[in-house]
Amino acid sequence: MKIARYEIAGQIELGITDGQSMASISRNISGAGNDMIALIQRWDELGPQVETLLANPDHALSELRLLAPIARPGKIWGIGLNYADHASEAGIELPEHQTWFVKASTSANGPFDPVQLPVASAALDYEAELVAVIGRGGRHIPAESAGDAIFGYCVGNDVSVRDWQLRTGQFSIGKSFDSHAPFGPWIVTADEIDAATLGIRSFVNGEMRQNSNTSHLIFSPAQQVAHLSQAMTLEAGDLLFTGTPGGVGAAMTPPRFLGEGDVVRVEIDGIGHIENRVEKERPA
Amino acid sequence: MKIARYEIAGQIELGITDGQSMASISRNISGAGNDMIALIQRWDELGPQVETLLANPDHALSELRLLAPIARPGKIWGIGLNYADHASEAGIELPEHQTWFVKASTSANGPFDPVQLPVASAALDYEAELVAVIGRGGRHIPAESAGDAIFGYCVGNDVSVRDWQLRTGQFSIGKSFDSHAPFGPWIVTADEIDAATLGIRSFVNGEMRQNSNTSHLIFSPAQQVAHLSQAMTLEAGDLLFTGTPGGVGAAMTPPRFLGEGDVVRVEIDGIGHIENRVEKERPA
Repeated sequence: MKIARYEIAGQIELGITDGQSMASISRNISGAGNDMIALIQRWDELGPQVETLLANPDHALSELRLLAPIARPGKIWGIGLNYADHASEAGIELPEHQTWFVKASTSANGPFDPVQLPVASAALDYEAELVAVIGRGGRHIPAESAGDAIFGYCVGNDVSVRDWQLRTGQFSIGKSFDSHAPFGPWIVTADEIDAATLGIRSFVNGEMRQNSNTSHLIFSPAQQVAHLSQAMTLEAGDLLFTGTPGGVGAAMTPPRFLGEGDVVRVEIDGIGHIENRVEKERPA
Repeated sequence: MKIARYEIAGQIELGITDGQSMASISRNISGAGNDMIALIQRWDELGPQVETLLANPDHALSELRLLAPIARPGKIWGIGLNYADHASEAGIELPEHQTWFVKASTSANGPFDPVQLPVASAALDYEAELVAVIGRGGRHIPAESAGDAIFGYCVGNDVSVRDWQLRTGQFSIGKSFDSHAPFGPWIVTADEIDAATLGIRSFVNGEMRQNSNTSHLIFSPAQQVAHLSQAMTLEAGDLLFTGTPGGVGAAMTPPRFLGEGDVVRVEIDGIGHIENRVEKERPA
């Protein structure tokens, strides 16, 4: 199933889509509301009803605006250097341990909304990523059963401000600028795809920049869930940005950073694509 | 004013305290609810009413259980190496830029609740810190007006799992274990104290380990707000752990990590103290 969050006629709703039309969960299931985290928490109860809705869709996709599937994730973790080719282009040896940083919850952004070129930096870069959405979650989840902890997957762009990311050694602040975690266009439930065999690509203004497959992930989403949950409780709606393949702008000679008006598209087979235009940050 | 969140007779309430008795905000101000973030957002409207309540307190402090002032902060950022003596004991030069890591929202913990000695590590350490609570917040807040963005201050312990913090170079995961961000015992509003002149101390089983003053902070809370808000929007209830002075267990020869049953007390003049007992994590 593809579960989306969208705006139509000024209302925010949840829905299920086949990629062409949308059936509203919020309108058709009493008490389902429009909070994706609450829906995920009640999925065992509501999922079977949701699945039946597509027989009678409410809207064409063209009528509505797709939003970030989760407005404000409780946690957004991102793993570094998780494709061998990206580790190589960054000049770093393959990691023994998983390397994790954080994207602030305020960086969450819609699948087709603008990404800010910030006032504070011109070193803006893209990173195509498969995003795992936590469902049941928990603590000390063995890798063998981590699949049960994952609700589904999205396409994401781990937008990065390279100078802020690298100048203190701590990546998180350079990953946490407002608008720098666009994801979507919807959540594909984990039962519907094999996350280990998905083609993943990014394009800037139509030019392919990254082209890989999740089969090249060093640490799988299941291994990531197992590792993180040794430290902390993973909860419904938490996001894991699972790593980016080679081809980022910072690794080119000379580096090719994103500028105003550039359009970045990230696509993953079996999920869909997101596309975000770079716009200058306008201070409020 | 000292604004607290507490449990009494199975109910969670907000209140104002003089350190001896508590007047309930939730009971006495219609619609105030028990969500601290919402109270902070409405402070301009509700603050003047809150101030009058202490004339008629509802409870003695001994009747209630103080909770984390904010159940689930939207963001928790911590700054590294922000006292000259701690940078020195860690063997690191004074930083040119502010060095920030994240504590996961799920690490938030009450001022007198147990801290977990995790299954995953024995390298558990304490860090006494002044915690700034964001009020008005915003983006691109100049240091000169950052005081207006801060609602108040708490005592915090930036509990750290040193092997997880250091083994990949990215500190955040080692700072994010469940229960490892105890803070409180209440929020002292910013108008009531001069955050730049506060004695700060920590004790393990009564033995003083850290003893400094916020006058030794390299980057002030106002400079921290200015820096972070260049990257992201700070929001009501976000927390900044503003750095720890020298004296942490990891810097001793040999290192003295925390063990089961140890009691860590952190106190800051003009705010109060928190005290957390180390208990073995019991996997659910």
